[in-house]
Amino acid sequence: MIDHTHDAAVSSWVAGADDHADFPVQNLPLGVFSTSGSAPRIGTAIGDHVLDLSGVAELLRGKAAAAVAAIEGAQTLNALFALEHVARRDLRRAVFALLTNEVHAAHCQAALVPAAQCTMHLPLAVRDYTDFYAGIHHARNVGSLLRPDNPLLPNYRYIPVGYHGRASSIRVSGGEVRRPSGQLRAPDSEVPVVGQSRRLDYEVELGFWIGGRSDLGEPVPIDRAGSRIAGLCLLNDWSARDIQAWEYQPLGPFLAKNFGTTVSPWVVTAEALAPFRVAQPERPDGDPAPLPYLDDERDQQEGALAVRIDVSLRTQSMRNAVMEPMRLGRTAATNLYWTPAQMVAHHTVNGCDLAAGDLLGSGTISGAESDAYGSLMEMSRGGTQSITLPSGETRTFLEDGDEVVLSGTATKEGFRSIGLGECRATIAPAR
Amino acid sequence: MIDHTHDAAVSSWVAGADDHADFPVQNLPLGVFSTSGSAPRIGTAIGDHVLDLSGVAELLRGKAAAAVAAIEGAQTLNALFALEHVARRDLRRAVFALLTNEVHAAHCQAALVPAAQCTMHLPLAVRDYTDFYAGIHHARNVGSLLRPDNPLLPNYRYIPVGYHGRASSIRVSGGEVRRPSGQLRAPDSEVPVVGQSRRLDYEVELGFWIGGRSDLGEPVPIDRAGSRIAGLCLLNDWSARDIQAWEYQPLGPFLAKNFGTTVSPWVVTAEALAPFRVAQPERPDGDPAPLPYLDDERDQQEGALAVRIDVSLRTQSMRNAVMEPMRLGRTAATNLYWTPAQMVAHHTVNGCDLAAGDLLGSGTISGAESDAYGSLMEMSRGGTQSITLPSGETRTFLEDGDEVVLSGTATKEGFRSIGLGECRATIAPAR
Repeated sequence: MIDHTHDAAVSSWVAGADDHADFPVQNLPLGVFSTSGSAPRIGTAIGDHVLDLSGVAELLRGKAAAAVAAIEGAQTLNALFALEHVARRDLRRAVFALLTNEVHAAHCQAALVPAAQCTMHLPLAVRDYTDFYAGIHHARNVGSLLRPDNPLLPNYRYIPVGYHGRASSIRVSGGEVRRPSGQLRAPDSEVPVVGQSRRLDYEVELGFWIGGRSDLGEPVPIDRAGSRIAGLCLLNDWSARDIQAWEYQPLGPFLAKNFGTTVSPWVVTAEALAPFRVAQPERPDGDPAPLPYLDDERDQQEGALAVRIDVSLRTQSMRNAVMEPMRLGRTAATNLYWTPAQMVAHHTVNGCDLAAGDLLGSGTISGAESDAYGSLMEMSRGGTQSITLPSGETRTFLEDGDEVVLSGTATKEGFRSIGLGECRATIAPAR
Repeated sequence: MIDHTHDAAVSSWVAGADDHADFPVQNLPLGVFSTSGSAPRIGTAIGDHVLDLSGVAELLRGKAAAAVAAIEGAQTLNALFALEHVARRDLRRAVFALLTNEVHAAHCQAALVPAAQCTMHLPLAVRDYTDFYAGIHHARNVGSLLRPDNPLLPNYRYIPVGYHGRASSIRVSGGEVRRPSGQLRAPDSEVPVVGQSRRLDYEVELGFWIGGRSDLGEPVPIDRAGSRIAGLCLLNDWSARDIQAWEYQPLGPFLAKNFGTTVSPWVVTAEALAPFRVAQPERPDGDPAPLPYLDDERDQQEGALAVRIDVSLRTQSMRNAVMEPMRLGRTAATNLYWTPAQMVAHHTVNGCDLAAGDLLGSGTISGAESDAYGSLMEMSRGGTQSITLPSGETRTFLEDGDEVVLSGTATKEGFRSIGLGECRATIAPAR
């Protein structure tokens, strides 16, 4: 899988790209952008610029005809992701050649747009959205708040637990998320009231965008499941803990989650991530082996991801004082108990279909220690311990005007690190 | 709301329509059909025929211009349902005039296709699918199998409990549903195995197709929520009880349900249902009043539906012996604890958006008595009591080759009954 597009020694002629934290030429993430007065179109991030792929279609067609056909005139990545992954591999190689060989610089200039002039859009039209619960430390932390003696339910180590989320309220990074209202029941009350959520939280997740297609009735075997992940994004699964606590029995979260989910605009492709595949951490002694349909030696050896994720918070006061966001946590994708391939194999074992536009959330990715927690619920121990910010303010949950920023980086010795960009949104007051 | 299109004395010139159980001219449900070699298009059922609405567009345009613009060339009802309901009311009146005034018969003949020659399609592209749990007898029956002392959870009488289902696996009536495999844990075992579901069940539900649009962040007040239901269908929420029992904690049903959901092809419109609105049954003494955002006097007086639903079963042996399906249950929409308007108001109280293409399931509609149960789980008391069929076979859950048929009728004294048609599918063996 490792080819020359991962060679850290190769430079791009695009000014600043080699030094860009997230988007050197070894990354080439895919996204949908527009500039003032123009329609959305597909691009790739290169340093501080976006390369309009339709604008260089003639230069790519010879090497990546299928991909170019799916890109031209498209306002989403759905058609491109519906192709087999070889089409996206060809595209990556062709774009890499364009951006590393200076002979193409003149032909590309007109298609190279400063990122600051671009508005980013949701990269795919979301078909169905499934959120998993694969962060075992998060599951244990939240479980221990609810059930101190029995934090992990008996099914957790057998099932990549997941549920269906709301596709229509997924938004791209950069906007506002309105504080939801709903039924809340105080712990000391028998009766709920209707009001604004007072326990609004973020959840640090990765999002996996599906590629290809499997039809209804067609399980995806574990040895082919990993190749169904076309790319990766950051995902913030906003959660109203007070609404959730009262509503979630017996059918799971609903209004506590479906008011909004934010994703990063750039899809870091499976091809770009190839060098950053690592072994799935060994299961602790006593944990059962994965059942056969979830068990694949290669997946155990290289099905996990060397991706680090930071979550930061900036309040309105901090913005007023021109303070940087404060990092609340740094976690890693290796904290996931299940690999993306295991999620895909489980999702389809009953014949459920998966196709381009499907988005899988990983579940909240917390580490074992408190500096690696992926939600305020965990950091504040269920709202009982407040966090002090550099502005002197304190938080147990999010206040209006708070901005939450996720960022992520894939890193591995010997390879140029590549970034996932940012997933950012600000809490707007309840209506 | 009651206009001359509900007048039981009015006849249609279409042969047999006046005597048709489901589709007299007082119904005029909307659907998507195709005939051999032709593209799907929008039609209305009239007796044993389907009227191709594109084929009579010129006759309708003067009275229903907006609706006709949304119908011509369309392969789904999404554009039509995105309009305000006045557009669908105008369409109904114009079609009613065509089909009742013999002067139009000659102009309509070419657009009138025998239903037997039509293949029906999913009427809308499903955007998001939400399944509620509003059948209180079902909730109590299932709860009492799990928690004999505490069948209804404390939130049930406050919250129209719901969760997100899988949009991509919704299919129109008439096909097969493949028996799912998945993780199953026997009651006497600590450890799950992977295998075919042995406790496959149907669930008798109504489906509510959403009309119009409310944007993210915009709650729909209860006094306007009822008008967001564009129409009604029958819905079978196939359920694998053994998969469900092991997977559903803590995030709700997932693989137990998302392998398939079947809906009837004809959408009986809100306009057609106007005469069949009835008062929501009074809550039993001791139940709390609905919270203000769910409480509307008019909704309580006419927000429920006088719709009766039958569920029947026919095994392969019964088909071989040319036996009719056996009716297993007859229930009524008035067994729902929450009205469709309450479901919409609750769904959007947190700002969740709803638009055309959204489908809401009612939840399983059981009556209080065993002849009105809406699932085999209830009829067989959790699989402990078998049901004897006229063929001499017995069932606790569904076997391969079993065909489940839902049918429904809106009836009220003084009005011509109108039918919902059928929702039918057959269990195919696991792959």
